Amino acid sequence: MNIQLNTQGQLKHFLSVEGLPASILTEILDRASSFIGKEPKSIKKVPLLRGRTIMNLFFEASTRTRTTFELAAMRLSADVMNINITTSSAKKGESLFDMLKNLEAMGADMFVIRHAASGAGHFIAREVTPEVSIINGGDGRHAHPTQAMLDMYTIRHFKGDFSPLKVAIVGDILHSRVARSQIHALNILGAKEIRVIGPKTLIPPAIEKLNVKVFHDLQTGIQDADVIIMLRLQRERMESALIPSEKEYFQLYGLTEKKLQKANKNAIIMHPGPINRGVEIASEVADGNQSVILDQVHFGIAIRMAVLSMAMTGNLSSRQIEAIHG
Amino acid sequence: MNIQLNTQGQLKHFLSVEGLPASILTEILDRASSFIGKEPKSIKKVPLLRGRTIMNLFFEASTRTRTTFELAAMRLSADVMNINITTSSAKKGESLFDMLKNLEAMGADMFVIRHAASGAGHFIAREVTPEVSIINGGDGRHAHPTQAMLDMYTIRHFKGDFSPLKVAIVGDILHSRVARSQIHALNILGAKEIRVIGPKTLIPPAIEKLNVKVFHDLQTGIQDADVIIMLRLQRERMESALIPSEKEYFQLYGLTEKKLQKANKNAIIMHPGPINRGVEIASEVADGNQSVILDQVHFGIAIRMAVLSMAMTGNLSSRQIEAIHG
Amino acid sequence: MNIQLNTQGQLKHFLSVEGLPASILTEILDRASSFIGKEPKSIKKVPLLRGRTIMNLFFEASTRTRTTFELAAMRLSADVMNINITTSSAKKGESLFDMLKNLEAMGADMFVIRHAASGAGHFIAREVTPEVSIINGGDGRHAHPTQAMLDMYTIRHFKGDFSPLKVAIVGDILHSRVARSQIHALNILGAKEIRVIGPKTLIPPAIEKLNVKVFHDLQTGIQDADVIIMLRLQRERMESALIPSEKEYFQLYGLTEKKLQKANKNAIIMHPGPINRGVEIASEVADGNQSVILDQVHFGIAIRMAVLSMAMTGNLSSRQIEAIHG
Repeated sequence: MNIQLNTQGQLKHFLSVEGLPASILTEILDRASSFIGKEPKSIKKVPLLRGRTIMNLFFEASTRTRTTFELAAMRLSADVMNINITTSSAKKGESLFDMLKNLEAMGADMFVIRHAASGAGHFIAREVTPEVSIINGGDGRHAHPTQAMLDMYTIRHFKGDFSPLKVAIVGDILHSRVARSQIHALNILGAKEIRVIGPKTLIPPAIEKLNVKVFHDLQTGIQDADVIIMLRLQRERMESALIPSEKEYFQLYGLTEKKLQKANKNAIIMHPGPINRGVEIASEVADGNQSVILDQVHFGIAIRMAVLSMAMTGNLSSRQIEAIHG
Repeated sequence: MNIQLNTQGQLKHFLSVEGLPASILTEILDRASSFIGKEPKSIKKVPLLRGRTIMNLFFEASTRTRTTFELAAMRLSADVMNINITTSSAKKGESLFDMLKNLEAMGADMFVIRHAASGAGHFIAREVTPEVSIINGGDGRHAHPTQAMLDMYTIRHFKGDFSPLKVAIVGDILHSRVARSQIHALNILGAKEIRVIGPKTLIPPAIEKLNVKVFHDLQTGIQDADVIIMLRLQRERMESALIPSEKEYFQLYGLTEKKLQKANKNAIIMHPGPINRGVEIASEVADGNQSVILDQVHFGIAIRMAVLSMAMTGNLSSRQIEAIHG
Repeated sequence: MNIQLNTQGQLKHFLSVEGLPASILTEILDRASSFIGKEPKSIKKVPLLRGRTIMNLFFEASTRTRTTFELAAMRLSADVMNINITTSSAKKGESLFDMLKNLEAMGADMFVIRHAASGAGHFIAREVTPEVSIINGGDGRHAHPTQAMLDMYTIRHFKGDFSPLKVAIVGDILHSRVARSQIHALNILGAKEIRVIGPKTLIPPAIEKLNVKVFHDLQTGIQDADVIIMLRLQRERMESALIPSEKEYFQLYGLTEKKLQKANKNAIIMHPGPINRGVEIASEVADGNQSVILDQVHFGIAIRMAVLSMAMTGNLSSRQIEAIHG
């Protein structure tokens, strides 16, 4: 029994990409596609979740991710409420369990959870009543599944089929929930080859078991790659001495136009944002014509709409959805 | 002349339960009932206050209460705005009077007020223009009328008629605006017997004048009770030496399964939340099958919808409301 | 080429009053008029911007101004989001440019900008993609164009034609973006005479070039004036020794009933708020029957609705707008 699916095999919670069938991932991508507007950067507004209440529970601050979920909820016509945990009754010593039960009792249909602890989403999904859906907006080092799905959308949008693709993920793999989710998604969707590239201190020990090739040299690693995903370097990694300095990191692992020449000449450059110009990526590359970083942000709203609406309208047939879209 | 009623005797402001006729309280309960959905914990979304602007003015922080009013406003399709007083022009030295007049001029239809000073709601209701309604979301030790009404709803839901009921309120009666409002509501709605139970330091001197019986022993006090309302123990009461310790308080006044056996065996257990497990209530009781604490939270949204909509649509006939509900 | 207008000469951004034709200013006033409701202080709710996303980017805190823009967006049925810059990824070292590009990619249709740097709005308008509109909510000492337009609305509402009017602006002209925008608007709309009144330390050196007369004595300056606009005195001016004390300032430049007798007996008294009672204005005047200060606040919502909707619906004919208004 997969806790993420209901008894008919439809998406109920979205906690991690791991363990979901390819058909569900493809359904997310297809539904997201239906939300992209015709004008540049536009997103359709649809009444799919009118009258539903979505609560953003961010135990870890992230204005950027919260904003994207809030926008997605608005485009679906849901009522959305941000619960600021630090200023809420958490202060009064209320347990997480009691807080969730109270928010459920207030009529919440869905919680979007961001939490510093790995597995927080799974824990909460087991606690809530069957009427409530849980969406993982990032839990510790574990998973960031909507980020991985917007990345998959971006790859499919620019490259079509996954089967011939060589995808390189570059940077701090060790601490990255984004990388973990991307690797699972690429495996499920059948990418030809997944590579991770980074210094030994930032690559997890047994990562090869996830069907990836490990490289410690950037230029060797991106050889013939079709997709290059640069990860954000957290400044605290330097303080903890895992890397020597930003300057040296940029020299070894920063993506420049020169190094990029090793990759497939049509390779796309991705980054989950916000970018550190001159640390993991040169401005010339971030702003260059192979960069699809802002497309990722745009598609991210549509992906979150797809996930929110699928988790709450599992019973709507695709014909009904088309009818609503007009 | 009751400041809370308009010239036709309809609810205009909701400042305190005290002084309102039973017919208004019953109308609040009846209207709240119409907002409860069929699915568990669900609340209907209705267009009753479409195009109206509700402003939450919380001079005292309370995420929990503010959230319930915000949800109620959303379910009524109103536009709702939270004015954070501490970061607003209060800093610039603007008077409360000027701030209210400015918010009125911006088109506010209603203010929901939470304030540390007793009587703040009445003060503001006298200052505002006749087009604006005031809802008291808790003022000092004075009143918390929507909390009392959700408690009355819960009692009526589980017990039906008020007339045969013995209701016990347990804990810090002295500092509790909730208890004051509950006592007034129970008297107006005709409960048979109201008891307050707590240590001498936490019972107001002349409380018997409100038609209540005072007990200092929990087991004697809840004898044959049909409804037991546990109050939250504020931690600051210990600092001010009004009670010796949490442990001793729990021993004397904490509700356990054992003590509960003194009450009527169908007694319901209520609490305004958030609960202090192991201080005023044992977890086994809070989570037990006599506990209706989460039902209170659920009904609270509907009660706030009833109050907000009655105060702003006094002129709508019940037939019109039914038409809107569909 | 005026960056504020599109190729058909319609409003695209609203950055400053300066440089706009009288026809655009009049169109703003006329459209605002259509949003004023029939009941006192009421504002119509219209579906003009349904499905559009407005983001308030306030780099400088101003609850009051942000609230008015948020209310205006709600009355236009737009989705509105407040991006709190200090807690956003600005902390993570993201550049303003990258932040804007990300918000655009999320589907923002309009940014309302408040910034301490003069010219911030123009800078941002040059950076954003053509699909996005920029509204200046106050930039440094430069401009506060929606405030100036609500002032013009108030003047036209009470006085009708601008051509015979003598308008006096009193106080700290030097630091006031409001005064600068008012002077431009009054010149464009053809007021007969514009006067600025204040101590030498608070009048900019070459202000006469803007077609204004300078006075250092209040009673001489307001002689026969039809409109008197009092500016707020920032307390930090005293700390920087530009004026000696609040008390002395009030004696010289504070508007009292007695001094007011020098003006036209039908003169209206205006103030951008929040007022300092007893500093730049006596309470008897602020609350007197010549004061139109709260009318300004009311009209301010309608003016912001006019500007937001014009900048985003340049292509809607006035007949279409009437159809939407019903």
